[in-house]
Amino acid sequence: MTTHVIKSYEEELDRLKAMVLAMGKLAHEQLALVVDAADRADVKLAEHVVEQEPQADHLEHQIDRLAIRLLALRQPVAVDLREILSALRIAAELERICDHAEDMARRLITALGGGRLDSTRSTVNLLRFAARMAQDALLAYADRNAALAQEVWDRDTVLDEMYSGLFRELLTYMMEDPRRISAAVQMLFIARDIERVGDRATNIAEMARYLGVGVPVEEERPKAATTKSMTVPGAT
Amino acid sequence: MTTHVIKSYEEELDRLKAMVLAMGKLAHEQLALVVDAADRADVKLAEHVVEQEPQADHLEHQIDRLAIRLLALRQPVAVDLREILSALRIAAELERICDHAEDMARRLITALGGGRLDSTRSTVNLLRFAARMAQDALLAYADRNAALAQEVWDRDTVLDEMYSGLFRELLTYMMEDPRRISAAVQMLFIARDIERVGDRATNIAEMARYLGVGVPVEEERPKAATTKSMTVPGAT
Repeated sequence: MTTHVIKSYEEELDRLKAMVLAMGKLAHEQLALVVDAADRADVKLAEHVVEQEPQADHLEHQIDRLAIRLLALRQPVAVDLREILSALRIAAELERICDHAEDMARRLITALGGGRLDSTRSTVNLLRFAARMAQDALLAYADRNAALAQEVWDRDTVLDEMYSGLFRELLTYMMEDPRRISAAVQMLFIARDIERVGDRATNIAEMARYLGVGVPVEEERPKAATTKSMTVPGAT
Repeated sequence: MTTHVIKSYEEELDRLKAMVLAMGKLAHEQLALVVDAADRADVKLAEHVVEQEPQADHLEHQIDRLAIRLLALRQPVAVDLREILSALRIAAELERICDHAEDMARRLITALGGGRLDSTRSTVNLLRFAARMAQDALLAYADRNAALAQEVWDRDTVLDEMYSGLFRELLTYMMEDPRRISAAVQMLFIARDIERVGDRATNIAEMARYLGVGVPVEEERPKAATTKSMTVPGAT
């Protein structure tokens, strides 16, 4: 079945890592396009994000296939096994970041169809913050930089606070003017997508820290707070 | 390091599968509790779901650990490798289903704090439908039943249509009475959680079909439709 030329094991591991980083680059580009689309109210840019989405699935499939081949043929142990399993998981997180980008793009298209966007500035700020988290998490993975990974992990709490603020802001607009409800609901879901991108980045950071330090993160994620912040304190 | 008694390989694979099924049982119980909590407007039940959430993380960690040990010590190939990787992925999907259950429970608590719920009946119907998908996907995994897996996969389109209907219903309530916006927004996010539970079930079904038939699902998921339905056709 396999007709590939057998390369050195190190070469194949390097290729796996390079593929994960290429996928990270795609995820970053997709998020940057969503930022621009929201910032300039540009439907064409948002459509471009949707068109590019299949690339992420394709890259994830390639990574899966190589990882499974490495597991099957090379029977790795210890460090290499950790390396391969992390690549699989980071690819899955990146694929979901690209999914979120696509979802945001589709929602932007709908919201823009209904007229102007609400809370564009807060949304763009939040998205830039989350995109930077994802970028730095990938950098921590590329460089095995446990300190940077920890720093990304810590930023998730800040993102959650910003998200809470944006959520309240959008609810206020909706209550002030029911005609804005449909578009504002799309923006609420976009805000939620951004918050999830931050969670994905945090997951990648956890894996980068694991690869850098060698022990899994057992510490409790600041997750309860995340979910609590989503219930919009004070807005019942 | 390893002080475990070395069991037979088959025993360990069986144990891995049993752990995945136990996690499936937990996921199903959590969803059933959310159904009851929504149906009876019962805050206590919803709180119980939140309290039980750490069990899912714990089970997933156990599955991860056993799977990684099997990969490292037994160096499986072909069918067994596929078996172990599928267990890892299904566990990850189940953990996310439990996350969705927790998120829904927290949102129910918030929404109930603001008075009565909107669209309870439609929400409960949607949730029951999604919970059944998850249960049948697990059954397809347990029995290596590719036909049932395919059937679950097909149901995702129906779920998406039901979701679209519920979404429009909730938007209508919000527009009719802005005082209902806060609670209805929580219900919108619950609807979205349910739609995601359906996606997780579909992912599990894909893996069950893969295990039953031996070839990965390459067919395009009815995913574009899913995301499109989220943009609420006609409600701009």
